[in-house]
Amino acid sequence: MTVHDAHTRMTTGELGVPFTRVALTNGETFDRYCTEGPGSDPEVGLAPLREEWIIARDDTEDYDGRETQLLDDGRSALRRGAAADQWRGIARRPRKGTNITQMHYARAGVITREMEYVAVREGCDVELVRSEVAAGRAIIPANVNHPEAEPMIIGKRFLVKVNANIGNSAVTSSIAEEVDKLTWAVTWGADTVMDLSTGEDIHTTREWIMRNSPVPIGTVPIYQALEKVNGEADRLTWEIFRDTVIEQCEQGVDYMTIHAGVLLRYVPMTADRITGIVSRGGSIMAGWCLAHHEENFLYTHFDELCEIFKQYDVSFSLGDGLRPGCTADANDEAQFSELRTLAELTARAWEHDVQVMVEGPGHVPLNLVEENVVLQQDWCHGAPFYTLGPLATDIAPGYDHITSAIGAATIAMHGTAMLCYVTPKEHLGLPDRDDVKTGVITYKLSAHAADIAKGHPRARDWDDALSKARFEFRWRDQFALSLDPHTAEAFHDETLPADNAKTAHFCSMCGPKFCSMKISQDVRERFGSTLTPEVGMKEKSAEFVELGGTVYVEPQPRA
Amino acid sequence: MTVHDAHTRMTTGELGVPFTRVALTNGETFDRYCTEGPGSDPEVGLAPLREEWIIARDDTEDYDGRETQLLDDGRSALRRGAAADQWRGIARRPRKGTNITQMHYARAGVITREMEYVAVREGCDVELVRSEVAAGRAIIPANVNHPEAEPMIIGKRFLVKVNANIGNSAVTSSIAEEVDKLTWAVTWGADTVMDLSTGEDIHTTREWIMRNSPVPIGTVPIYQALEKVNGEADRLTWEIFRDTVIEQCEQGVDYMTIHAGVLLRYVPMTADRITGIVSRGGSIMAGWCLAHHEENFLYTHFDELCEIFKQYDVSFSLGDGLRPGCTADANDEAQFSELRTLAELTARAWEHDVQVMVEGPGHVPLNLVEENVVLQQDWCHGAPFYTLGPLATDIAPGYDHITSAIGAATIAMHGTAMLCYVTPKEHLGLPDRDDVKTGVITYKLSAHAADIAKGHPRARDWDDALSKARFEFRWRDQFALSLDPHTAEAFHDETLPADNAKTAHFCSMCGPKFCSMKISQDVRERFGSTLTPEVGMKEKSAEFVELGGTVYVEPQPRA
Repeated sequence: MTVHDAHTRMTTGELGVPFTRVALTNGETFDRYCTEGPGSDPEVGLAPLREEWIIARDDTEDYDGRETQLLDDGRSALRRGAAADQWRGIARRPRKGTNITQMHYARAGVITREMEYVAVREGCDVELVRSEVAAGRAIIPANVNHPEAEPMIIGKRFLVKVNANIGNSAVTSSIAEEVDKLTWAVTWGADTVMDLSTGEDIHTTREWIMRNSPVPIGTVPIYQALEKVNGEADRLTWEIFRDTVIEQCEQGVDYMTIHAGVLLRYVPMTADRITGIVSRGGSIMAGWCLAHHEENFLYTHFDELCEIFKQYDVSFSLGDGLRPGCTADANDEAQFSELRTLAELTARAWEHDVQVMVEGPGHVPLNLVEENVVLQQDWCHGAPFYTLGPLATDIAPGYDHITSAIGAATIAMHGTAMLCYVTPKEHLGLPDRDDVKTGVITYKLSAHAADIAKGHPRARDWDDALSKARFEFRWRDQFALSLDPHTAEAFHDETLPADNAKTAHFCSMCGPKFCSMKISQDVRERFGSTLTPEVGMKEKSAEFVELGGTVYVEPQPRA
Repeated sequence: MTVHDAHTRMTTGELGVPFTRVALTNGETFDRYCTEGPGSDPEVGLAPLREEWIIARDDTEDYDGRETQLLDDGRSALRRGAAADQWRGIARRPRKGTNITQMHYARAGVITREMEYVAVREGCDVELVRSEVAAGRAIIPANVNHPEAEPMIIGKRFLVKVNANIGNSAVTSSIAEEVDKLTWAVTWGADTVMDLSTGEDIHTTREWIMRNSPVPIGTVPIYQALEKVNGEADRLTWEIFRDTVIEQCEQGVDYMTIHAGVLLRYVPMTADRITGIVSRGGSIMAGWCLAHHEENFLYTHFDELCEIFKQYDVSFSLGDGLRPGCTADANDEAQFSELRTLAELTARAWEHDVQVMVEGPGHVPLNLVEENVVLQQDWCHGAPFYTLGPLATDIAPGYDHITSAIGAATIAMHGTAMLCYVTPKEHLGLPDRDDVKTGVITYKLSAHAADIAKGHPRARDWDDALSKARFEFRWRDQFALSLDPHTAEAFHDETLPADNAKTAHFCSMCGPKFCSMKISQDVRERFGSTLTPEVGMKEKSAEFVELGGTVYVEPQPRA
């Protein structure tokens, strides 16, 4: 399960908080945040880490969950005449009159196990965790029905997090493939995963993902609801949606994207855009609003949604259904009108002590990126921002992991708490296993660049450890400390595959004679930090020539 | 030579200024800047486009150039006992007492053919070109001995440019491979190319590159000079360096990196850095300074260098030999001390009407990026800034095209005029053909993101054309307008390879039933921009349901 021989998953403390230990060749170690979980056999699933914490709080009860319906798995199940086997029949909910959300505990001054766990993971004081959750500036997505997940926190005072989207569509994928993508995504560092399936067996696919996921899982329940009405948006009803949400809450989904900000009066604001409405959820709700000439039922029933989410501690991810789909449409009236409504909904959810994050764009030119996070933070009272990129230009399909990494690092530097990855397949197809890896690594480096820019304590330690290894020609350590050790080593080995090249004081870029690192090391070794312009440079100069006398490095055997 | 069937290289006006025309399926066309040149047979080379312009100015003369020496091609030539065949024996220089630099003409109020050509390429007024060159805020690298090159301009008022580094090293590559990399780099959009060869046959490799390059070529002459002294930096002398510079000037090199800012007193400032001195040129000069305890001969002989550069209109690229090699070393005393010296040298070069750009980092955390370009622009009187990335984090070897694209887009947005690409092989090996392509495309998209952010006139037209094609399901146009049409099409075809999928109103991401673009189009078609909250939405709603009634899109045949 580890990505490199030098990597070991370790745990610390009574809570068993995981981290990745990188063993270096100089005897030192470097410890990093670990997302990959303890490893699971897909047929068995993960152990329910949080179950005993939840039981110990003694404020929940088991109950017979909603009865599984044939339609939960869509038309394939109808055709088969039987639902796929379900994993769990029972669900957990609070005892009557209690509130079990992390926000509720935090506001009541209660430190939960989840908060303690998060504090150890982040290396911060637990009071920071509690107070940020209490203020709504951070969330710990932790449905009581997803006890397998290792707690993590999303908020601007903490490490920037990365979400990976997976999920099938009507023309691709199988359940096994999706579970494999989940495992692959967390192996490379995804902090949460969203299952955006829109194809067959939606319920069962999600069940397998939930039971095997060591990270919180997000969904967009309107996708499944639409499947239940045969893809006809105007046949959607609050009742069908509500039932779907409960189905997913009981399965353990930790956060759900709800497009409750797409109000009827905002839809016309998109008519003159170049790309109209590009959010799938947003366009479904816009179509529904127009067909019925009624207000978005997610908006009108929002308090009922809060009541449901509260039962399981599901977090809102308030969807930006009117986000721009191209740079030309960025920061327009439609987008910001919806954001004002999301701000209103944030406050309403908080009245129920339900945790909230707010979704953001999309496609935004670099000069308009900062405005997005500044307005969101201001209007939404500091609720965590969760953005998709944004892409800084539209001209590079096939490279949109990069066009969006530029926007993502920038928006995260200004305060976005979690970044939703974009893969090279964006706009062109569904990501496969390789795309998932490329997307996660691209976003991990963007998030880390933001952590450094924000001056997050210890963020730069990783860079410094790798740079020291580079300077000291500890090639194996440079690989082991890389976000992707395999690729780093493979690239190096393309030109210098021999084993002794891993300890050589040069590389193929300059060859044995021309290495600036080597020259610079020679300079430092001979003069150290005692060298100043005032003291003895003439003497040092003579010494330099005597001691081997030249910066020339004897050519080493060709590797 | 064109990258896609829908692309044609066209020329306009009496100067034959090239552009790429993209033919769209709706009968429209989209015209773009073109770098790939008219195509050349490597054995024959390109036609000398600028020769008649230069002759017509009647201020230069042919002369017998410096005699080729066996050592010009390094030890391989010594072993062979014969230099490789040379392409040209004669060179061009100004008649006595004349100054032929573009800056000199510009300051004298003369509009050259090169300036006219550049103005057509950039789509701007030629007076903007002249005045920016006269002020030193832009350069047109155009050695009179490289008449094959198509004029281009580097300055912050113009499109952000991209340089691609190629070149062999002691352990890799052949001449043919380097010429192939050159052609590949300009095919994908490199605006200039630097030949950084440090291996065998340096002179001849460069000769082939020069004669086949439609873009300006840059070099770092200290690399070849070091070869001539068997790689022993302390044996370097001004005379050997000077001879090498003249050799390269006569070959037609358009700009040269000169590390004249690495002063003896700055070297100790690097001793406590994590990665010391990482610039090869910088470390060579630092080693020389220390070994001799003398001031950098490039600094002490700088006016002589100006006199030489003036003869051929070679531009300075003032090298940042003390640039940071990791985020921890960014924006330190060593780096900024050198920058102050580069500012001084900029002014000295301008006294000779020699064109100058100034090189910048390197590795810089995102929050410190802007300071680099602000200080450089302020101290260096607006001389164009030319940066390598910078990388925003050190933790992702194998992905440093991306870590640096983040920094590059940011620094260009703030005023950097040209970006030197970084490939996925950075820190690990020399780029091969695929890496060159990835590096160029990554940097083209970064440069373009900056052009949009700067509000460059017409920059966003490209994004808008592609986004319109995307919204209208013109898949072929979306591919053709992409920076890399092949990759975009290949990614799409992985899941929907059939020809009719190229006109389908859906893609594999959502399948036929779930396309937000389609839903959004339906909304627009039925309501258009006449829809406002005030007028007749109830009626429109009824009409919507009547006219097919639903946002449901009938499944189309599986492709």
